[in-house]
Amino acid sequence: MAYAYWKSNKRSDIAVFDLFFRKNPFKGEFTLFAGLDECLKYLKNFHFSRSDIEYLRTVLPPTTEEEFFSYLNELNTHDVTVFAVPEGSVVFPKVPVIRLEGPLPIVQLLETTLLTLVNYASLVATNAARFRMAAGPETALLEFGLRRAQGPDGGLSASRYCYIGGFDGTSNVLAGKLFGIPVKGTHAHAFVNSFTYVDEIKCRTLKSRDGSMEKDLVQLSLECRDRIAPVVGVLASETSEGELAAFIAYALAFPDGFLCLIDTYDVHRSGLPNFCAVAMALNSLGYRAQGIRLDSGDLAYLSVITRQTFKAVAEKFDMPWFSDLNIVASNDINEETIHSLNQQLPFPTQNLSQRVILDHQPPQGHSINSFGIGTHLVTCQKQPALGCVFKLVSVNSVPRIKLSEDVEKVTMPGKKDAYRLFGHDGNALVDLLQKPDEEAPQPGKRVLCRHPFQESKRAYVSPAKVVPLYKCFWRKGQVCHDIPTLKEVRDVAQQSLNSLRTDHKRALNPTPYKVSVSDKLYQFIHELWLENAPIGELS
Amino acid sequence: MAYAYWKSNKRSDIAVFDLFFRKNPFKGEFTLFAGLDECLKYLKNFHFSRSDIEYLRTVLPPTTEEEFFSYLNELNTHDVTVFAVPEGSVVFPKVPVIRLEGPLPIVQLLETTLLTLVNYASLVATNAARFRMAAGPETALLEFGLRRAQGPDGGLSASRYCYIGGFDGTSNVLAGKLFGIPVKGTHAHAFVNSFTYVDEIKCRTLKSRDGSMEKDLVQLSLECRDRIAPVVGVLASETSEGELAAFIAYALAFPDGFLCLIDTYDVHRSGLPNFCAVAMALNSLGYRAQGIRLDSGDLAYLSVITRQTFKAVAEKFDMPWFSDLNIVASNDINEETIHSLNQQLPFPTQNLSQRVILDHQPPQGHSINSFGIGTHLVTCQKQPALGCVFKLVSVNSVPRIKLSEDVEKVTMPGKKDAYRLFGHDGNALVDLLQKPDEEAPQPGKRVLCRHPFQESKRAYVSPAKVVPLYKCFWRKGQVCHDIPTLKEVRDVAQQSLNSLRTDHKRALNPTPYKVSVSDKLYQFIHELWLENAPIGELS
Repeated sequence: MAYAYWKSNKRSDIAVFDLFFRKNPFKGEFTLFAGLDECLKYLKNFHFSRSDIEYLRTVLPPTTEEEFFSYLNELNTHDVTVFAVPEGSVVFPKVPVIRLEGPLPIVQLLETTLLTLVNYASLVATNAARFRMAAGPETALLEFGLRRAQGPDGGLSASRYCYIGGFDGTSNVLAGKLFGIPVKGTHAHAFVNSFTYVDEIKCRTLKSRDGSMEKDLVQLSLECRDRIAPVVGVLASETSEGELAAFIAYALAFPDGFLCLIDTYDVHRSGLPNFCAVAMALNSLGYRAQGIRLDSGDLAYLSVITRQTFKAVAEKFDMPWFSDLNIVASNDINEETIHSLNQQLPFPTQNLSQRVILDHQPPQGHSINSFGIGTHLVTCQKQPALGCVFKLVSVNSVPRIKLSEDVEKVTMPGKKDAYRLFGHDGNALVDLLQKPDEEAPQPGKRVLCRHPFQESKRAYVSPAKVVPLYKCFWRKGQVCHDIPTLKEVRDVAQQSLNSLRTDHKRALNPTPYKVSVSDKLYQFIHELWLENAPIGELS
Repeated sequence: MAYAYWKSNKRSDIAVFDLFFRKNPFKGEFTLFAGLDECLKYLKNFHFSRSDIEYLRTVLPPTTEEEFFSYLNELNTHDVTVFAVPEGSVVFPKVPVIRLEGPLPIVQLLETTLLTLVNYASLVATNAARFRMAAGPETALLEFGLRRAQGPDGGLSASRYCYIGGFDGTSNVLAGKLFGIPVKGTHAHAFVNSFTYVDEIKCRTLKSRDGSMEKDLVQLSLECRDRIAPVVGVLASETSEGELAAFIAYALAFPDGFLCLIDTYDVHRSGLPNFCAVAMALNSLGYRAQGIRLDSGDLAYLSVITRQTFKAVAEKFDMPWFSDLNIVASNDINEETIHSLNQQLPFPTQNLSQRVILDHQPPQGHSINSFGIGTHLVTCQKQPALGCVFKLVSVNSVPRIKLSEDVEKVTMPGKKDAYRLFGHDGNALVDLLQKPDEEAPQPGKRVLCRHPFQESKRAYVSPAKVVPLYKCFWRKGQVCHDIPTLKEVRDVAQQSLNSLRTDHKRALNPTPYKVSVSDKLYQFIHELWLENAPIGELS
């Protein structure tokens, strides 16, 4: 296509392209915009290498003019200007998130890469934000998706944009190294399976936290197991010795970060008593355990009996902090699982193990306070693609419209500016697209907002606050706006989401947020549409 | 986890890990194994860089022993041995596709990367194979998914593994350059939209294919349009002049590769006559057009009227080859779309445009002979993750079993060999797992194949042919088996699929392929299971 543009003498035509999507993902009514930072890096590094050009020679027709390869060789993005919505912002269908202006063939060549950098980034950030809303602000959310992503780089993108969407950490250590995202994780089942007997542990001693003494952690743990077993309601001999050995080995390596996967054999009869035993042993040396992870079974039920056990141990052995240990769940969690866990009614106490000593508080529906989420998060199982598109809207200041056999694929022609209008309560009311020569909407001044395609749908809006959505990020070969850190983008996302009314963010059947056009833009679009649509002829 | 292994003095323990999945994707009964080549590259390059170790110092506890970092610094995979099924093979649940043996902490460190390299690769290759089966062997299948993949690298993986699964080409030019996959594509709507008048075309002349003459292609095309319009049943003045200009410009650049997107304005009243006009003009200079692409609307109907038009033009102007021009469809195609198009009954002729001159053959349900597939292919929308797992099955030759709250998560302990048993018709009958000390099954010799978990399910099988599934690919720091080219892997995939009975490959409710264990392995698994499962106690 670039060669045909070039050959048609369009290399200096100035085009405007809009990058936008037509529908919010996940049956929701909002999207988080992400990927801009990577787009700017791509603009900065955009060029054809010698080997690229050599390869292109082999696939373009032999009649391709030599000058075209010289042209490719010198291409750069210095004449491209990019306006965009700041990364992390809540955005809506039809409002361009990036607007590019520059030489037609060059901007066209950017299309696919910009789409691939924005599409998945925005999709997975939005998915992460939905998990965050489902889980509530107090629950820790960890991204565990690397092994199910589209290769190592897909996994890195997932870690990065899930963090923007509101996750607290990742198990992807490279993402921690490259982006400074907190890394979190526990051991795998294999670690537990690799031990059989406590005698396998050769270096058994651990110094106390204050350095004042050193004790045999194996011996301590075995003693604690005998004391813990009746509290949990099991026999010490029932628990797996290999599992106990693995927990002790893990505690010796991470006395301050002791968090165990307790479902390798049996949560109640082995994992829980073994964990509590080692946690108590650590406690006698001044260390506080972190908690446990559940990766199978009925997570609600298992988390409740785990919490009950923690409370019983806390009470029995006077360790109040033991009640609040972390309970991490991680078995194929999706957004619905979290909603469903939150709606779970408390288990009747008779259904819980009679041998667990219950405290005075009624048990809850679940007691998970951290989720490790992989597959459904990174693959966006519910809708694995955001349909971002890249459309030509103007050439040499002449507007272009793309008609289509499908009405919803018709584009909004010409260069446009975009504003977000806020109400007195601080919430976003409507996004408004205008022609660039129109005066920006003013706070306190009534403005007519029209549906872009349905004639009768319109409303007067008197905004309390008006925010222009676009900032210039790239001009004359330079990034021309401060690029926020990943943490700052994460904050932008939370603030932007907070300015959205809760009914737009509801998980089920949310209220659509309105995207409108000015009256002038409405007239302009529809005139151009009529002008370009062929007239049918019945015969 | 590596630190805890190291600290527990397990650094020299020899572990065996199995990489396998538990369920075929897409409600199907087969999976194509892919990603092995990348796994071997990873093994070759595996190391911790200085900056990796510096980063790890910042996230591991300050008590981490200095020697551990020296250990990391010297890590390599020279002591790891890898057996695997050849890349491209059809594989089934529970049969390990890769078996690794080596020092416990090292093999454990490989887990996540090997999973991410195999999971998506195998998933998308399987998806591509399903599209291929739906489309049949004659239809061209092009991968158009880069913009919807998980970033540029996710897109590269998609292009590579879709080719293995049976696609013919990709629009991803970098995949062409790096992997030698044929690159294919057309222009976008933007190319059409960027033109308004034929006068925009400055260099209007084209040399004939044999070099004997040079003519004004604009003039020729306008003349042809006047002759074509009545055949298509439209007025020449109805067609979009901008679109005609774009097609001429494209033809001037690619006279031998002329394939146009014809739905920018109106397929029947503009795109088709414009395309036919330029194709005829090209023909008068000795060039044959390639065809058209449809990207919206009712693809079945539009393809049929397009084919009817091609046939009418072929007949009217005595250009028989015009009947067989390519019709490429590309609008959000998934596997079901292709099945549904293939089941589409012919349109009654009265529903087709009365103005298209029908030839003597009845119209078909659709006339598409090439699909460009993006989103559903690369995101594997129907099931965006294959659940590959990586399980420890032996340490120092002692078998390990992972029990679980979920029975289907129980692993098969110990090192195992795997064989595929074929019948006299050349079809695969069953996969059989054995303990390595058992004699391999022999052709013509009866062998008892048991269901791994259900006692009563077993059968005697007398195979006509026995193929050991594993080959050694990595030993002593070297790749020790020939690595086939991408094209060869693609052939392996087709051969392997061909050896599978059609009922296993059916799109709807396919027959499960049987994976079995030898009687000796069955006894071994179940003894170990009972030994490790805690006994409940009712009170």
